[in-house]
Amino acid sequence: MQKNIMEYNTVELDEEQNAVVIIDQTLLPGRTELIALKTAQEIWDAIYLLKVRGAPAIGVAAALGIYVLVRDMDTEDFEIFYGKFREYQEFLDSARPTAVNLSWALKRMERTALKAGREQKRSVAEVKEILHREALRIREEDIQVCRRIGENGLTLVKPGDGILTHCNAGQLATVKYGTATAPIYLGQERGYGFHVFADETRPLLQGARLTAYELHSSGVDVTLICDNMSASVMAQGLVQAVFVGCDRVAANGDTANKIGTSVVAAVAKYYGVPVYVCAPTSTIDMDTPTGKEIRIEQRPEHEVTEMWYRERMAPEGVKVYNPAFDVTDHELIAGIVTEYGIAAAPYTESLREIMEKRRQESETED
Amino acid sequence: MQKNIMEYNTVELDEEQNAVVIIDQTLLPGRTELIALKTAQEIWDAIYLLKVRGAPAIGVAAALGIYVLVRDMDTEDFEIFYGKFREYQEFLDSARPTAVNLSWALKRMERTALKAGREQKRSVAEVKEILHREALRIREEDIQVCRRIGENGLTLVKPGDGILTHCNAGQLATVKYGTATAPIYLGQERGYGFHVFADETRPLLQGARLTAYELHSSGVDVTLICDNMSASVMAQGLVQAVFVGCDRVAANGDTANKIGTSVVAAVAKYYGVPVYVCAPTSTIDMDTPTGKEIRIEQRPEHEVTEMWYRERMAPEGVKVYNPAFDVTDHELIAGIVTEYGIAAAPYTESLREIMEKRRQESETED
Repeated sequence: MQKNIMEYNTVELDEEQNAVVIIDQTLLPGRTELIALKTAQEIWDAIYLLKVRGAPAIGVAAALGIYVLVRDMDTEDFEIFYGKFREYQEFLDSARPTAVNLSWALKRMERTALKAGREQKRSVAEVKEILHREALRIREEDIQVCRRIGENGLTLVKPGDGILTHCNAGQLATVKYGTATAPIYLGQERGYGFHVFADETRPLLQGARLTAYELHSSGVDVTLICDNMSASVMAQGLVQAVFVGCDRVAANGDTANKIGTSVVAAVAKYYGVPVYVCAPTSTIDMDTPTGKEIRIEQRPEHEVTEMWYRERMAPEGVKVYNPAFDVTDHELIAGIVTEYGIAAAPYTESLREIMEKRRQESETED
Repeated sequence: MQKNIMEYNTVELDEEQNAVVIIDQTLLPGRTELIALKTAQEIWDAIYLLKVRGAPAIGVAAALGIYVLVRDMDTEDFEIFYGKFREYQEFLDSARPTAVNLSWALKRMERTALKAGREQKRSVAEVKEILHREALRIREEDIQVCRRIGENGLTLVKPGDGILTHCNAGQLATVKYGTATAPIYLGQERGYGFHVFADETRPLLQGARLTAYELHSSGVDVTLICDNMSASVMAQGLVQAVFVGCDRVAANGDTANKIGTSVVAAVAKYYGVPVYVCAPTSTIDMDTPTGKEIRIEQRPEHEVTEMWYRERMAPEGVKVYNPAFDVTDHELIAGIVTEYGIAAAPYTESLREIMEKRRQESETED
């Protein structure tokens, strides 16, 4: 019997142990095991090896993680503290190149440290406490952001709709609700009765192992399909909307997300199904003009040729191409669902408006 | 070290053993093992369990197979012989519902038996010998058909082109050359230097296990990709043409082929890459008006959730959709390459012309 994934937290801070506690996602769906990350290497490995994955969850893990790493540092000199902070920041930042949330969360923590320590001349002890609060705030904001994305996304579908999703932009990719799954979970709470199709998402099968698991465990009607079956279900009229997450949105709306997203988008375009990218504004990168400038991580060949298999399933010596992400052209995207509303074409304008709205709201908060 | 697959025959008749000898494709690429099929159940299982697969190879195996089954039958009465023949025919025909070659080859053998035994009143011994020759002729024709498809397909590409293929419409799916791979092999002989991308083709990984294997073993430059990476390579301009096989072509050009073919086709349309279906005329079914009338085989869930895996990769109890094929709309197809030339839109006319050409040529032969 599966335990409902909703009973766990994907990422949290364990104050007593001074550790980041995560669900080790490489063991799902067979085992649900919490692991405590205490060293920089452990945190880096957890991100690189996809034990914690999904842009928002990575960002939260990095924010909590850098706090954990500097908490017990033995110095009263802010510049020494900051030098070491920067070392950790650069190291953690190198774990995954594509997800903007990783560097975004680390930069936000860095700005917080600089403001408190250098501008406001707070003591190192005070800086640590300010970083503590900031890390927890990043985590709490993630929950709120997902909830608001869910509310906005829910306006795009109706009860009984078929929804296709790719990879895992689920609760497991965030702290709670997920991004692409947020409308599904909110709809589930309200009796919408969605029929969800989960792409298995080769090579690492995040859809089969994670999305099918978390949706099924929480009672959502979910059907697992291979990545090459999306046209088959769409041709039968079983899909009214595609919801996917994203790792980085360029200023023109081009979106980097898990490899295969642009395949789903091209197929959906042909069958007239709208594709919605669920994107916390932290993933929108106005400094990247188009998808062409997004660097795509290449991953090891064995993920394609043998990982998960009883025996090698491809001939020895064959070449393998294994990009972790692809870029979906903005013209394939019907809407980008953020916590500040839904951006539509032309994205160059609508995304700027969304970011302006965020700026105004955060100023009001300050 | 891999043995070059070209040194084997995919399907042949072993006269001494009175058996159909095939390469057991479920063991590739790890082991290359020949197995002898002697009973109706062994032949049925080999087809159902995909030990022999690919529409042309299945047709040849069934033709040789029904000859093997009736060869030693102990009767001089043609009607008794024919009754038993029909039993075997119906049984073998039930192994795979979608591939038209299976029933086409069996019907051709049946017509041959009826003509010799009932019309021409030949003895049962003579009927057996006529069936023997017909089965070998079906096998030899397959080689010639593939070669002619290769020659026609080769006119659609140029040296150095990138070619993407899905599933295995290769030598292993036929007796020799394959259908979708025939232009690749002929180009290889002539120094064309193609760069081939092979979709791995979930759930059964025919692309990873078979296509990557046979192309790599024969020296072709082949790169293995997951099914969801086609958009990524096309967006980079690495693919100038898609060649795929087919299991059944409807009169309007709609084509049933391995699940995922229509995904590749929709993606190729978006990126402006032409899709060519390599189709022996035996796969063209003028009695099926459109793809809607093609019955799609549904296969077991465990192929998606656990087959090939060390452990189950999907949660217990999750629903699975696992169609073996999908239908590619004719408007996504740039050309249907047959042994009698290349059909283009409007297919309702061009396919009729191709079939007329075939009829005229076979009359000349008779």
